[in-house]
This record gives sequence, structure tokens and C-alpha cells, in this order.
Amino acid sequence: MNYFHFLLIAIFFILPVRGDSLSVYSPDNVVGVQFFLVEGVPYYSVQRFGRDVVQKSRLGFELQDIPDLKTGFTINDVTNTHHDVTWKQVWGEKKYIRNYYNELRIDLVERGELKREMTIVFRAYDDGIGFRYEIPEQPAIGEFNIMNELTEFALTGDHEAWWIGAYQWNRFEYLYENTPLSEVDTVHTHFTLRTENDLYLSFHEAAVVDYSTMALERTHDYTLQVNLFPWADGVKVRTAAPMVTPWRTIQMADDPGGLITSYLILNLNESNKIEDTTWIKPGKYVGIWWEMHIGKSTWEIGPNHGATTENAKRYIDFAAEHNFDHVLVEGWNKGWEGDWYADGVVFDFTTPYPDFDLAGVAQYALDNGVRIMGHHETSANILNYEEQMEDAFALYEELGVRAVKTGYVGHGTEIVWYDEDDNENHEWHHGQFMVEHHQRVVELAAKHRISLNVHEGVKDTGLRRTWPNLMTREVARGQEYNAWGGEGGNPPDHVVILPFTRNLSGPFDYTPGIVELHYDEYRPDNRINSTLAGELALYVIIHSPLQMAADLPENYEARPDVFQFIKDVPADWYDTKVLHASIGNYVTIIRKDHNSDDWYLGSITDENGRILEASLSFLDAGKEYVAEIYRDGKNADWINNPYDIVIEEKVVDSSMTMQLRLATSGGQAIRFRPL
Amino acid sequence: MNYFHFLLIAIFFILPVRGDSLSVYSPDNVVGVQFFLVEGVPYYSVQRFGRDVVQKSRLGFELQDIPDLKTGFTINDVTNTHHDVTWKQVWGEKKYIRNYYNELRIDLVERGELKREMTIVFRAYDDGIGFRYEIPEQPAIGEFNIMNELTEFALTGDHEAWWIGAYQWNRFEYLYENTPLSEVDTVHTHFTLRTENDLYLSFHEAAVVDYSTMALERTHDYTLQVNLFPWADGVKVRTAAPMVTPWRTIQMADDPGGLITSYLILNLNESNKIEDTTWIKPGKYVGIWWEMHIGKSTWEIGPNHGATTENAKRYIDFAAEHNFDHVLVEGWNKGWEGDWYADGVVFDFTTPYPDFDLAGVAQYALDNGVRIMGHHETSANILNYEEQMEDAFALYEELGVRAVKTGYVGHGTEIVWYDEDDNENHEWHHGQFMVEHHQRVVELAAKHRISLNVHEGVKDTGLRRTWPNLMTREVARGQEYNAWGGEGGNPPDHVVILPFTRNLSGPFDYTPGIVELHYDEYRPDNRINSTLAGELALYVIIHSPLQMAADLPENYEARPDVFQFIKDVPADWYDTKVLHASIGNYVTIIRKDHNSDDWYLGSITDENGRILEASLSFLDAGKEYVAEIYRDGKNADWINNPYDIVIEEKVVDSSMTMQLRLATSGGQAIRFRPL
Repeated sequence: MNYFHFLLIAIFFILPVRGDSLSVYSPDNVVGVQFFLVEGVPYYSVQRFGRDVVQKSRLGFELQDIPDLKTGFTINDVTNTHHDVTWKQVWGEKKYIRNYYNELRIDLVERGELKREMTIVFRAYDDGIGFRYEIPEQPAIGEFNIMNELTEFALTGDHEAWWIGAYQWNRFEYLYENTPLSEVDTVHTHFTLRTENDLYLSFHEAAVVDYSTMALERTHDYTLQVNLFPWADGVKVRTAAPMVTPWRTIQMADDPGGLITSYLILNLNESNKIEDTTWIKPGKYVGIWWEMHIGKSTWEIGPNHGATTENAKRYIDFAAEHNFDHVLVEGWNKGWEGDWYADGVVFDFTTPYPDFDLAGVAQYALDNGVRIMGHHETSANILNYEEQMEDAFALYEELGVRAVKTGYVGHGTEIVWYDEDDNENHEWHHGQFMVEHHQRVVELAAKHRISLNVHEGVKDTGLRRTWPNLMTREVARGQEYNAWGGEGGNPPDHVVILPFTRNLSGPFDYTPGIVELHYDEYRPDNRINSTLAGELALYVIIHSPLQMAADLPENYEARPDVFQFIKDVPADWYDTKVLHASIGNYVTIIRKDHNSDDWYLGSITDENGRILEASLSFLDAGKEYVAEIYRDGKNADWINNPYDIVIEEKVVDSSMTMQLRLATSGGQAIRFRPL
Repeated sequence: MNYFHFLLIAIFFILPVRGDSLSVYSPDNVVGVQFFLVEGVPYYSVQRFGRDVVQKSRLGFELQDIPDLKTGFTINDVTNTHHDVTWKQVWGEKKYIRNYYNELRIDLVERGELKREMTIVFRAYDDGIGFRYEIPEQPAIGEFNIMNELTEFALTGDHEAWWIGAYQWNRFEYLYENTPLSEVDTVHTHFTLRTENDLYLSFHEAAVVDYSTMALERTHDYTLQVNLFPWADGVKVRTAAPMVTPWRTIQMADDPGGLITSYLILNLNESNKIEDTTWIKPGKYVGIWWEMHIGKSTWEIGPNHGATTENAKRYIDFAAEHNFDHVLVEGWNKGWEGDWYADGVVFDFTTPYPDFDLAGVAQYALDNGVRIMGHHETSANILNYEEQMEDAFALYEELGVRAVKTGYVGHGTEIVWYDEDDNENHEWHHGQFMVEHHQRVVELAAKHRISLNVHEGVKDTGLRRTWPNLMTREVARGQEYNAWGGEGGNPPDHVVILPFTRNLSGPFDYTPGIVELHYDEYRPDNRINSTLAGELALYVIIHSPLQMAADLPENYEARPDVFQFIKDVPADWYDTKVLHASIGNYVTIIRKDHNSDDWYLGSITDENGRILEASLSFLDAGKEYVAEIYRDGKNADWINNPYDIVIEEKVVDSSMTMQLRLATSGGQAIRFRPL
């Protein structure tokens, strides 16, 4: 197809064309992308309703030892296509997702001697854009190393930004900063911004496979550039044609809630590759975990060892009685002695401690209709784990385990491997080395019909669409910081920033549900920094298909009234909507149960109390529902009176409005069940 | 009742008491006020959910020639009462309004010789507070002059503010500024702010009678002080005991839409004083007005005189055909020659120009089921107007006129009166002199069964509750600036700031409905700065019980499709809700017709296009409605393509959600009528 042919086809999509640029507009003409070559150099820009969101920004690559792919291009072919497909999630925050976009493919070729080919693909959605590079198979390129991806995002002003810094020792486990764009250096994605016109933007990437993950570096003024986490030798990506890069994505919405209900990143991932998904089941779990975090017991064997046969059976009894699906057991295997998270200590993934009868406990669980959730803490010793992991997953499969929590505790560049010459290489958690490792783990786990819950891993880029056994992950600052985080743990605004940043990428094993908000016996200087009702609301706010009830069984037994909500709330959803959204201030999310006609509402706020009006129009019209309400009492206050909760029932219908009164750092959780 | 008695009663309302302060909390314990004396000086503070909104702030007065009322006080008595009454508006944005608050009355008395008494009354609502001073009848105070009201509002941070400056020559007719609080000097109210915690505040006053209106002056840091517009001699208020001041009000909401649906100011006004209100009727009007503004005709007599008998009859025919209630005729009376809005020219309010048969036209209107809307342009010559106004209103009443538009064009302090010694005094439009004048006019008009539409008057402080014939007013920068305002007229964001500032005070005769957005024949450098759909949406966004269809009859006749919405939309409402609100960015308001089961939706944006999700849950459940939609076309754009409009019908119900796609400076207007 030549250039003129393209023009004939595309006339239906393409409206104003700027100069001799090529354009693609989203189906409802909300978002537009312009591509243009200036003296052989590729650039693009992005508009929303005709106004620039990204100004003229560079595209291309710098390569190792061979000429860069950044200039001297001419357009070989252009294809403009329209797509509209609705697909079904195996599990998730929404059952049916519409993938509705217009695509512009631009096949570039070098004018010089090499005549190397590179394609740039733009997809314009009404809620944002994605674009990627493709290097097709061709004589002039075989294996090659990317030293720099030149992709820029030249923003239009000093937007308000929410971010965590990249290249920090503790990976993604930081509190978010809220500053003008001009105070940003190099940040992880999701990187979320608010323009002065109240347009919300969030930058991320989709489908990171065989590539490094990206940070965004502010190179000058309001311009960001892709900054790929390098290998130890400085190479950013080791690859070979044919290859495709991850999608660079910008989600856009007039209301920050629109970011939460944007499925652009999932849409840019490939379809499910697992044929039989019947073994992939969302569920809830309890486990031997919080008791170690608050210091009641230990991971390593000893007088207070948590993972004993007896203690595990106690949790299994509790799980069975209250219908939980899994019981996580951490600290069950050899290797937890000493300073395991520094270096030197090597975990054994198949040998339990002598006080833990792995096979017996697993069978006891099965006999009670529950399963053990396995645990692989790697201490970021990848070589050790990769040597054992085939056996480790096989063992768990044999024991009836269907979900494994993995851990990669290890600081900054503590991931070590040895090359052919036995040189020691230190890698980042976020680079291509680890992207490839995690890909191997998810495929191995799938082979053993095991789903994953990854802690300290790489960020989610939507691969759960392709590998739905990659169910949830941490990769953020979770509840555990309230146990021992010092400096106040997670401050009240943390959980009202997460929905607009970290959580945009996918499920988060935050481990909510601590109902005994103080644990002075063990950690007198720490507490949960919210009200009791606020803690319950997190089950709706934070989606995780493997969702934990994180507190100790005895604490739940002391509060059966409150525990009822945690027992009722599902971990898999048919639909998700956002009723109120203000980044770092408050958020109300409603979700429909995947398996019933129940709806759930969660609303939380920061250290300021709020009055929010919630229309119940999401309920089926003409039908009565019982609202099981868990709300802050009139005198609730997160500092002095966090346990003041009112639990009550009301008959409601879709024509009604409820006033949500959220105490300081409080919240409200509601189950709506048809009468 | 003594202090100890108070404590016994009030224990039910009063929760935390700070030191030895007195407190009152709103019914749902959202807003609290603390009052305290420090060495005899009265102070107060305001909290919301226990966090300061107004820090310790001074109260009191400085007086002329007699000791100030600002120090040396002791508490004589305290009363704490609870109130919950729902009352009915004669007309308005909502039919039934709940007045639900707790009140704290503090009777102070001076410790010194004079023993003067002063009461401070605080009312705590869940959506804000109001407080006022009362000086009871007492031997030690008779007539007195207030030189300074010391009321302060010590805010807690450098909030984002929307404001227009006070003490400007053109009264209230300015574009709003949007700056940090620290850049504010002295501003008119409503003065609206957003805290960094996304709490919205708006400062105003209620029930200004026999007093001067207030501006707010930033005296230092984040502290504002009441700044009363002075008389020519510097006195702020001439008064006598017993007296009450206006209420000083702060409205508060977590979402800026909550400011729009706060009825705190009306609640703080006295009930309706007009027994028979059957003659007070909301309605719509056309008139001889826009044609003068664009320069097609003139106010003064001459070859292009607008207010001729023939032209008036043409408008009456048009009004009768399309069911309008009134036909405004401006320029009908003597006095428009020359530079009338400067000084010297004196209007005659009972003598028509020779080419205008006032009585004949008024009768022609009545014969066609229409009424003339009278017009009194005073050119701010108050003495001249007061001399004639009894006759002027009597004449209109006799001619069947039920509504009069008044005008006070005159700059800054051009209101002139002569005291006993024949000294010329120049007064502000906003001071006590004019407050008293407007009070005389509204009472006189009521006597003649005439409703008022006041232009260039004082701001609305809710007196329409007490005098419901005070129906609407301008007192802001209206549509006319698009005719001749230069510098772009009203920029796109003006109408999305108004709902959160000026319009919080009450009805606004903005005069929307210009469907011929350009008038190049007359004013080639001016235009309406929105799309056609956006212009229609203003009928729902901007409430006015006398609502104008401002364009020329011939322009409506050319666009019957678009005109249909203007014909359908009512001017009186049963209920009002806000679906989307972002100050200066976008707003969606829905209102239910007062006289039918129809609902109307208006949504507008600034120069940025928007995608907003509108839940239709406000519709009655289980009932089908026809949505008559007037929306921006896919290629609409306010600069290049403002007439691109789609008019279509859809059957909808309360369970549905509509996506509102607003073009740049565009909008959407929808009528929902039961099927």
C-alpha cells in the first residue's frame, strides 16, 4: 500500500491534518496523535479536543556498536485501521472490556545504505493513547543492543504531579510525592498528573516482555524521556529483530476517577494464552504473616516460630469455618535464620523446618476444604531460586497448592548473576534481567496450575491479560509498613493516592483488614492509621483477586460484627465504577460482585473528614436492596476514636442518594444485596 | 438563664470543649464553632471534622465618638438551641428547603461603667456557618455610627481563590481572578476558595438590611477582615439600637458542587413578608435589548430607534406566538440622548418618546396574552429616581406590567446626594445608602404588585426569601460583554466560574440564548465565545426566575430546531442537583421543572473539551423518558465550528448513564420528559 492509497482509506478517520503530518483520531474524536518527520527525524504529538497534551516529541533509539535508529528516515507505508472488539476477563475489576480504537501504523525505512526498517504504531483511544516501536525481521538487523530509547513526552505546563522516585534502594515501596512537574527528576510509572485545566494524565507502559521497564526522566522544562533500567554493563535492552517494544501509554480523563476505569493498558496486552483457566480462581486468604510483622512470632525457627504445624492447623480451622480459600504460610522452609535479606543466606524451597509438617498440613487443609498458599522468598537470589524453582512448583502442585506468594526482598541492585567469565553482575529489580526471570516464573507456574502473588517484583504492565495466573502483586508500600514502618507508617493520604497511581497498573496485595488497629503489646509505636470503617472500605477500594484478611484469627473472633463484611466481600468483580475521586483526598469506588447481584461500596478519605453524596443509581432500577452499612460513628476520629463504628441495615433502591459521612482518615463500606 | 444552666441543657450538643470556650456543633457533627473571650476580647474559630477552617479570629466594632465595642466583655448568658424546619420557596432553584442547625447565642456585657450589651449568634450547619451581632435595646446605646467592623477570618493556608476586586469603578462587572489567597487584596463576596485538602469554602453575607455590604480585606498572611463600604464621610454604618448586623457566612463542601446546593444564605434570611404572592410569577421574556447592544438600533430616539411602537408590537407578536411572558422594552422613555451614563442627564420615568405609544403597546401586549416588562434606567441618579418612582411604578401597574427591570449604570462613587447643608456626597453602589434605596424600591414595587430585575444593583444576600418580588438581578459581568466587551468579551471560563462564585448568591439575569453567535454586520470584532449547544446549556446552569431569550426574533425564526429548547426550558425549579463540578473548568447541573415531571440537564466547559459521565439516577425509577438532546457535534469547536450541533431524541431511564461529550467551550442541554 503506498502513501496515496492510505489517504483514500483514511479520509474517514482523519479530520484536520497539520502540515504534512499523519494523524489518527480516537473513535469519538477526543484524542488525536500527529506523526511527522522533520529532516528524517521522527516526532509525534498528542492532542485532546484539539489542544496539545504532548507537544512535538522525539522518537527513536541509540544502539550499541551499530548506527542509531533515530534519523534519516522516510515513510515507506502507512496503514490506518479501526478496531472494536469486546473481550472477557478471566477475573478482574470488570468482566467485559471494550477495545475500541483507531490505529496508525507508519512503516519507516532509512534513506541511506542500510535501508533498515522500523515501524511505529499509534493507537488512539477516547481515554488515551498507546504507541510502540516494531523492528521487523530484515537482513540488516540481527541481534542488537539498545543503549537509549529516545521517546520523549514534551508536556505543556508545570502540571501537579504524584510520583515516587526511580533508582531507589527500596524498589517501589515509597510514599508518593505531590509536587509540580518541575520538581520531578526520574520517576517510576504510573506517573500521574493534573493540568491546570483539570485534565488528568497518567503515564505507564503496557506489555513489557523481553525488554527493560521504563522510568521517566525529566530532561528539561516539562519534557520527560523514557529512561530504561540498564543492565549492569549499561546496555538497556539486549534484543534481536523481529521485536516489538512495550507500549508507551498515556491515559487521560477529565475526572481522576476516569483513570481508574480506563482499561487501556489491558487492551494493549495480548489475549490470554492459557487455554484451560478453570484452575485460576480468585479468592480470599488468611495466613501466618501479620503475627510476624508485629513481632508476635518469627519467620525463622525458634521458640516463637510462626509456621508450626499446630499454628497452621489453627489458621486452617479458622479459614474453613469462615470460608476462606487459602492459608498463607510464611517461614515454613529453611533459610530464614540470620540476616537473610542481606546476602549469603540461601533459601531451600523444598525443605520445611522440622516443626512444620508440610505434607500433613497441606492434606489437613484439603480435608477441610482449604488450600495452603505457598511461599517462595527468594531474598533476590535469582540464581538460587531458578535452580530450585522447577522442583519447588512441582512440590506445591503435588500438595494441592494453587497459589504461591513469591518474594524478592533485596535492595537496589542486589540481584546478582555471573556471566561466562564468572564476573559478578548486579542488576536492578526493574531491568530486563528480572523481566525475563518473572516471565519464566509465570510460565512455569502456569505449567503447574499455580497462580502467583508477587511481592517485591516488577510493576504490572497488564501481562495478567495474557497470563491470568499472574494474579496479584505488591510492588508498592503496603499494610506491613503500619506494623513496623516507623515515622507513622502509612499516613492517611497514602491509600487515597494509591488508586490514582500504583493501583492503575493492576491488582495490589495490600493486605487490608486489620481490625485491631493497635498492637501495643508488640509494636507500641505503630498502629493502623485509619478508623475501623476506613479499614473495611479498603476491600472495595483496592482490588486483588487474591485478597487477604490480614489480621490474627483471635482479633476477628473478637469482632464478629466487623468481620462479617470481610467474610462477605468478594475478590472478583463484574463491574467497577467511581463515584467520587480527588487524588490524595478521597475516593469512592463501587463494584459489582462477579458471582451474584450484590454491589459493594468503599469510600475513604485522608486526614480530613468528608461529606459525600452517593447516588445509588448503579443498583437495578425497581428492585429493593438491603444496604449493610459499616460507617464511621458520629464521634469517630482516626487519632482518638478510631473504633467508633455504626453497623446498620437499610432498605434502599436505585432512586436514592446516600450521604457518606467519613471521619478523619475514615471510611465507609457497604454491601448492597437484593432483598 | 445563667451559665451553669446552659451547660446542663447543652450537654447534648456539645462534645469536645476547648479550654473554657463555648462551642456549637452542626447537627451531624460536621462543623463546629468555638467562641472564647481572651481578657475580655471576643474571638471565635471554626472547625470541620475537628480541623481548623478559621483559626482564632477577632470579633467586635469600632464606633464613632463613643467607646468601641471590642473589649472588656464578660459572658452574661448563653443559650444553645436546635432547629429543624422545612420551608417552601415561592419560586426558586428548589421548592422545599430544610433549615437544620444548632444555634449558640452568647450575651455579652461590658464589665466597665457603661455595661453595654452585645449578643453574638452562631448557627452551625452541616454545610457551613453563619454568625451575626445583635445590639439589643438598652439605655446606654441609642443612635451610633460604626467606623469599623472587626470581624476576622483567619484562614489556615494559602488557599486557591476565585475573586473580583472590590472598590472598582465598574461595580461587580469583572472577570474573576484565580490566584493564591496571598495575592488577594480587598475582594467582593462571594469569595470562593479551595484548600490544599480539596475542601471548598465560600464567604458571603446574608440579609443585608439597614447596613453596608461588606468586602473582605486581606490584612495580613491568610487573614481576612470585614471591610464595609463606607459612606462619603467615612462612616461605615449609621444605625441605632436595637439592631442586628447581616449574617457573616461561610459555606463549606468537599465537592464544589456542594456549594451550589447549599441553601445556608436563604436559611439565614427572614421568611416571606408578602402575604399574597399569586402575582409573583417566574417566566421568560424577550425584548428590545440585544439589538441595541450589537448596534442594530439605539436606545435614544432617532432613525434607528429600537423602542418604537411598531418594533415593540413585532416582539409582542413573537412572544405571543412562542409563549413568552414578558417583552422588555428599553429606551422607551425620555432621557437617553447624549452621554446619559455620565452625569447631568435626567431620565423621565413616565414620559415615553413620541414614537412609542406606551399605553397602546401595553394594551396590545395584554390583548395577546403577554405583558410589557418595564424598564427604569436611573443612570445612578438616585435622587431623580426617588422623586419619580412612586408615579413610575403606579403607571406600570395601571398598564398591567408585572415586572420591571431597573438599571443603575454609573461608575464607582457616582451616586450623588445632598445633605442638609447642600453638600454633594458621592456614594458607592455597595454602601448603606444604596442598600436602603434598594429596600425602598422593593417594598414600593411590592405595593404595586411588581417584581424586580435589578441591574447594576447591590449583590444578592438572600432577601428574595423575605421579598420574593425581588426576583433576579445582574450584578456581574453578563452576556452583554460579548456584544461590545472587547478583548474577547467573556472568555470561555467565565461561565464555569460563575456557578461557584456570583451565582451562589442567587438568580442572575445573564441573558443567555444568543443563537446567532456572530454579528459581524454590526460588531465584527465580537462574538459569543461558546458553541451553540453550550449557549443552550446556560438556561439550566444559570437560574433566573425571569429568564431572557436574548437574541433577535429573526434569529430564532431562522433556527426553530435550536429555539425549541429555549421555548421548553422553564424558569422555575422544583429541585437542583450538581453532577459534575470543577471551578473554572466544567459544571453539570440538573434541575426538575417546578410545574411538571420534566428534568433538564445543562453541562458546560471552558476552552477544553471534556468527556463526563452523567448518571440518570435523578429520573424516577421504572419510568421511561424521552431525552431531547442538544449536543455538540463531533467536529464542534468554539473557534472554528461553533454551530456544529446534534439534536436528537433517545428513550432513557434512571438506570442509564449518558456520556456527555463537550466540545471546546461547548456544552450540552437535555430535556427529559416522561414518555
